[in-house]
Amino acid sequence: MEHAKSLPKYLVQRYQGWKATDYAENAAWYRRLATEGQRPRAMVISCCDSRVHVTSIFGADTGEFFIHRNIANLVPPYAPDGDHHGTSAAVEYAVTALKVAHLIVLGHSQCGGVQGCIDMCNGKAPELEKPNSFVGRWMDILRPGYDAIKDAPEGEAQARALEKRSVVISLENLMTFPFVEERVKSGALSLHGLWTGIGEGALEEYNPASDQFRPVG
Amino acid sequence: MEHAKSLPKYLVQRYQGWKATDYAENAAWYRRLATEGQRPRAMVISCCDSRVHVTSIFGADTGEFFIHRNIANLVPPYAPDGDHHGTSAAVEYAVTALKVAHLIVLGHSQCGGVQGCIDMCNGKAPELEKPNSFVGRWMDILRPGYDAIKDAPEGEAQARALEKRSVVISLENLMTFPFVEERVKSGALSLHGLWTGIGEGALEEYNPASDQFRPVG
Amino acid sequence: MEHAKSLPKYLVQRYQGWKATDYAENAAWYRRLATEGQRPRAMVISCCDSRVHVTSIFGADTGEFFIHRNIANLVPPYAPDGDHHGTSAAVEYAVTALKVAHLIVLGHSQCGGVQGCIDMCNGKAPELEKPNSFVGRWMDILRPGYDAIKDAPEGEAQARALEKRSVVISLENLMTFPFVEERVKSGALSLHGLWTGIGEGALEEYNPASDQFRPVG
Amino acid sequence: MEHAKSLPKYLVQRYQGWKATDYAENAAWYRRLATEGQRPRAMVISCCDSRVHVTSIFGADTGEFFIHRNIANLVPPYAPDGDHHGTSAAVEYAVTALKVAHLIVLGHSQCGGVQGCIDMCNGKAPELEKPNSFVGRWMDILRPGYDAIKDAPEGEAQARALEKRSVVISLENLMTFPFVEERVKSGALSLHGLWTGIGEGALEEYNPASDQFRPVG
Repeated sequence: MEHAKSLPKYLVQRYQGWKATDYAENAAWYRRLATEGQRPRAMVISCCDSRVHVTSIFGADTGEFFIHRNIANLVPPYAPDGDHHGTSAAVEYAVTALKVAHLIVLGHSQCGGVQGCIDMCNGKAPELEKPNSFVGRWMDILRPGYDAIKDAPEGEAQARALEKRSVVISLENLMTFPFVEERVKSGALSLHGLWTGIGEGALEEYNPASDQFRPVG
Repeated sequence: MEHAKSLPKYLVQRYQGWKATDYAENAAWYRRLATEGQRPRAMVISCCDSRVHVTSIFGADTGEFFIHRNIANLVPPYAPDGDHHGTSAAVEYAVTALKVAHLIVLGHSQCGGVQGCIDMCNGKAPELEKPNSFVGRWMDILRPGYDAIKDAPEGEAQARALEKRSVVISLENLMTFPFVEERVKSGALSLHGLWTGIGEGALEEYNPASDQFRPVG
Repeated sequence: MEHAKSLPKYLVQRYQGWKATDYAENAAWYRRLATEGQRPRAMVISCCDSRVHVTSIFGADTGEFFIHRNIANLVPPYAPDGDHHGTSAAVEYAVTALKVAHLIVLGHSQCGGVQGCIDMCNGKAPELEKPNSFVGRWMDILRPGYDAIKDAPEGEAQARALEKRSVVISLENLMTFPFVEERVKSGALSLHGLWTGIGEGALEEYNPASDQFRPVG
Repeated sequence: MEHAKSLPKYLVQRYQGWKATDYAENAAWYRRLATEGQRPRAMVISCCDSRVHVTSIFGADTGEFFIHRNIANLVPPYAPDGDHHGTSAAVEYAVTALKVAHLIVLGHSQCGGVQGCIDMCNGKAPELEKPNSFVGRWMDILRPGYDAIKDAPEGEAQARALEKRSVVISLENLMTFPFVEERVKSGALSLHGLWTGIGEGALEEYNPASDQFRPVG
């Protein structure tokens, strides 16, 4: 693999700072985590977006959350076809091997993937319809959600609505996995849908009774 | 989606704490990130493992890293077959839309996915060979790496070796994506391979000249 | 004391969150508690176990419960021999200085200390019999309770039974303290025995008439 | 045990509220904690005082802290004499059985036990000198700390100083336990000394370099 380069110096310096402070203060805990393995309470499925770090929002300790991040926090439907399915593998590992008690899907405002889905569905981004567009084919998972919001006027409100649908669709798709459904029904696992507004530091949660999101707390 | 539950109170409290401190102190930056969009310098591909948060190790600021996390930090080979490919979509978005300057693959010690791959390949985990094992089919990506380490004695050293191969294989697979290869060759994008040791807070980087990992810094 | 380390950062952040929210909203009450002193209505004697926080179960306000926590919520018999007796000191302070109206002993399921007592008494944990085993010598307090359950088949039910005996023995030992006995008999103080089941969120209370525990409410 | 009474109704109601909300939201986690056992990261040794709940200050999740509470957060010196030692048993269990990574001693302002120690040592509370005073004999542990503050003018500052000495003395006594000393020296365990000011919501930590407490954060 001839193409790998050295790490930029600013990252080396930051690592050294972390090693001398955060690592040093927590070394006993890190050693124990290494020896005994992880036992996270929850899995979080959130977006790759650089503006949304769930560990910050929830002051998470090392070892607390098992975190999968992909474009637009999407979970595809259950499809055991023998192909590579990174998200399904992560869910399977968290639920059946780590036995997490919570699956939390965290959506967010200004999601580029969700906006791409809108643009693709309303004809503004034909390049995303191409078979070789990985982003387009990934956002196909969210396509059923577009129907519910397509008559809304374009703009912020429409995008916010589809971002929240992305959370609900992921929760619905999670329930198509037999090992998730079984544990949810037995009470061994609970599902949670969240959406965060970047600019306002907002946090809303999905309320099944009203089929709406409402502010947390 | 009738199955969603309310967020546990301890997380609500921690969110409120974050809102009143970290968010309050940085509200102007969050608002600007919301308005102007993200502009991350690097994409990091790391594992879902709850013990490895790249935001800690590199003291990452909000908006700085676009982070994809999956089991064992794997990138599958380029396969534009029209199916859902979450990892490939994340790479495509980071490289072509966000134009990140760095792609960093971060492996780690005590990786449950890598150990699963070893157990699957040496016959100890036949359940992972089943077509409907998402973890098994995902770890197939790493199977070519097993050949290089299969003659080593089982145990810690063998696992560490395959964890590091998982980084190199991901880097190699990244180069099969035309949009990655082109930018790497033009100098617009650089690739980096890292491995962190949880217990010791170690950080090693892949050195193409020696085809080995060596401590950073 | 050269060995003290800095507090891990995640705890510093959570403290700052608490300060900015819970403390800020209740600052007047905290100031008054500091100035006027505490006036708790009840003392609770419960286990150190990280899974059982009486403040959660009873939604306790700051200033409401004086809480002593030790292994297996045990109270030793009255023994004014001039040695250090932490539990007896806590009871004496609560009853004679704070004049609490209730003494509540709270046992719980899956108690490691109680299981240790069973293992010690049936010969499976000889190391706990050693004079220098602090856990073993502490669990000696519960040894009289073992007789009542030793003929039961080993397992869950036996452990649950001894957990409940630990509550009754503590209540009996409390009555050996003259300042407790006197106030109980005068009606100034009442004793309560509780047991909580962690997995089911159960709460049972001791009923003197039947000498059994029964669900609360 | 004829003297036990029914739980006051207001506590029954609060328990029922907790069961319907907090327990219901976290049932999967409680069940897992019951089945798999606790794995707390830290042990906290704090005071019984009703105004100081460490779970609030640090937004602690169920299962996170193993908590021992006694009068004035004191740890007696190592004394394997075969007697009941509740604090030593709790420390032994946390360190050797649960293998916690941190031992945190948390002192606080307006500590009645510490004030009692001052009054006992300066002759104002002769009743605490009696052999049968459990509080007095327990506060003997802190008596060596009185020498360091006895020449200070009486009042708030003197009390604050001895409260902080109580933390340092407990840390020193912890190091007399062979199983603590060994793990601290090997890096498997770290000690932390904290003091909280109730009225101001303050948090200070012990700094070994200066032998002083300083604000956290």
